[in-house]
Amino acid sequence: MARRSQAEQEVLDRRFMAAALRLSRKNAGRTSTNPSVGTLIVRDDGTGPMIVGTGVTAVGGRPHAETEALAEAGELARGATAYVTLEPCAHHGRTPPCASALVNAGVARVVGAASDPDPRVSGNGYAILHAAGVEVVEKVLVAEAAEQMAGYLIRSLKKRPEVILKLALSSDGKIGMEGAGQVSITGDIARREVYLMRAEADGVLIGIGTALEDDPALTVRLPGLENRSPARIVLDRQIRLPETSKLVAGVDRVPLYVAACAEGDPHRRAALERAGVRFIGTETYEGDIALPELLEDLAALGMASVLVEGGAKVAKAFLTEGLVDRIVLFQGQEPIGKRGIASPIDANHIPAGFRKLRDMRFGEDSYAEWIRP
Amino acid sequence: MARRSQAEQEVLDRRFMAAALRLSRKNAGRTSTNPSVGTLIVRDDGTGPMIVGTGVTAVGGRPHAETEALAEAGELARGATAYVTLEPCAHHGRTPPCASALVNAGVARVVGAASDPDPRVSGNGYAILHAAGVEVVEKVLVAEAAEQMAGYLIRSLKKRPEVILKLALSSDGKIGMEGAGQVSITGDIARREVYLMRAEADGVLIGIGTALEDDPALTVRLPGLENRSPARIVLDRQIRLPETSKLVAGVDRVPLYVAACAEGDPHRRAALERAGVRFIGTETYEGDIALPELLEDLAALGMASVLVEGGAKVAKAFLTEGLVDRIVLFQGQEPIGKRGIASPIDANHIPAGFRKLRDMRFGEDSYAEWIRP
Repeated sequence: MARRSQAEQEVLDRRFMAAALRLSRKNAGRTSTNPSVGTLIVRDDGTGPMIVGTGVTAVGGRPHAETEALAEAGELARGATAYVTLEPCAHHGRTPPCASALVNAGVARVVGAASDPDPRVSGNGYAILHAAGVEVVEKVLVAEAAEQMAGYLIRSLKKRPEVILKLALSSDGKIGMEGAGQVSITGDIARREVYLMRAEADGVLIGIGTALEDDPALTVRLPGLENRSPARIVLDRQIRLPETSKLVAGVDRVPLYVAACAEGDPHRRAALERAGVRFIGTETYEGDIALPELLEDLAALGMASVLVEGGAKVAKAFLTEGLVDRIVLFQGQEPIGKRGIASPIDANHIPAGFRKLRDMRFGEDSYAEWIRP
Repeated sequence: MARRSQAEQEVLDRRFMAAALRLSRKNAGRTSTNPSVGTLIVRDDGTGPMIVGTGVTAVGGRPHAETEALAEAGELARGATAYVTLEPCAHHGRTPPCASALVNAGVARVVGAASDPDPRVSGNGYAILHAAGVEVVEKVLVAEAAEQMAGYLIRSLKKRPEVILKLALSSDGKIGMEGAGQVSITGDIARREVYLMRAEADGVLIGIGTALEDDPALTVRLPGLENRSPARIVLDRQIRLPETSKLVAGVDRVPLYVAACAEGDPHRRAALERAGVRFIGTETYEGDIALPELLEDLAALGMASVLVEGGAKVAKAFLTEGLVDRIVLFQGQEPIGKRGIASPIDANHIPAGFRKLRDMRFGEDSYAEWIRP
């Protein structure tokens, strides 16, 4: 390996990790309950670093990224550096864990971004490498990795899904108009971005007020991605969702969960169950659905990320409980006026603890995203 | 409370726990990712014990059984004994944990069956009670409780679903006939019992051989229970499942997962995805799907129990790997003869470590069930 100063090596490590993180995006949202991880195998025979193997978690979640990258590198992995966006797994099933696979391939150095909070891995992946004499560098671009894998990390650590609050605001900060049904606030291009956000989430959640007012389908309507619609969840304490709603009509393609209380009308429950709707029992707290308990149940159902799409009351409830991990605000060009429903937040009133992640434009509409570390 | 000898009290405790366990069966399979738990509140004012409150985990998983039983008992819970089939929960969401609710209601004594392996509860539920001066008796009818809640307990402890292997044998120990499609081995009544078993499972799994040979739908076809069909899973390494199969045809009502390898034909994968099939990526081990990894992924998807319905190769693979928790054998009255496919096990050749749980008859057919502690 070429002699480099430590500072030079750190710059190189960050560059390759950034590339591994970009690569890991390839299968985001398509790796089932495993996170989409990226791996690069980089070799330097004195003429500068050269990528000899690349891997990303396979669609469906397995094999892991390391397996693919090591297979591509073959004998060239011996003495090379592996860049992994998540700590390599450490627990045996029928196949060896990735940490052992890296050791067996003769990798000399492993640079990692995020640590894996799964108790069967946490620290053990790096420990296997250490014990075998592999040099380990941890936490390179760890914030970027944590942001990309937020769903997986939050579900592992907090036993609940990542909660992404998305709101579309008019130019005067309104999110809809009372009694006016679904109001178009942003344009086509922004709407497509929302479809992409849905396609990468495991669930999309609204309150019964929005369900009754807007009658949304909450599906992904993009050519080629029609089958990427996540489960829909409606907070509907008293079971008021009509069987004639678009949400129920779509139940033969995309799961629909109604979060209801035991006191909900059993006849309405039975009718919706016959239509294919699934129920999640909820506790109530001061008359509203207890959200931490609900999120715990959604995580247990396999969901690592839930996109909360409103309305104002639901958005406020999640914010008040401190249960929002990411905020996405779209803002359109047109005002709604006095009859509009005020948004509980806007770009100038983001709760403490969030940091701005990015600003973008989608056509005429602006987009801003905040994250809480 | 009446003075009783310890032996008398133990007999009473077992009787009430048996009743609580029977009660807990009421919502089995309908409590989402929470176990179906039973609670009895029993009071004795000197004239003998009297049940003053009963509760079972609500359909959908919440509220928990203790909440319901305490609400029913009201002030009568003060000084009473609570029988709980699972350690009361100990972690705060928005509502107080059940252990605190029992303390707040003034319950004097709690008799529990199974402990909760969830790290946020394990031992902590009983500790809250102890600390508040409540008398705690643990592990009453613990084996019976563990058998009833096997799915929840195994998923918590082993991070995989309970695996129930079900086979239907002809009188000469065959499970089908090569090239003959679906062969009827047992009668209508046994078939209905299989539907009930499916309705209580989170997933039903077969190999691609059985899918191609029998073209089964694997749904629950019982009046009133049509919507209780669990997810179907096909082990299909190379993606051979035809789009014209009954499994795919039913995908608009019941989820279908194909467990495949990264090497599977991407065009066939895309065609099935368009039809609504979901894919689980798998590792291979000696040419076959690595089952421990697959089960880990099914648990992460929210499944606590999987019913393995064949064929012989798949049954053998799960048995060889030591991944079967429960064996159910149906045996019909008719022989299949020499062309039949031999079952990998029969009632006289059950692997070591299993104990017989029960024998039953369904019409002309016999039924036997074994469990591994």
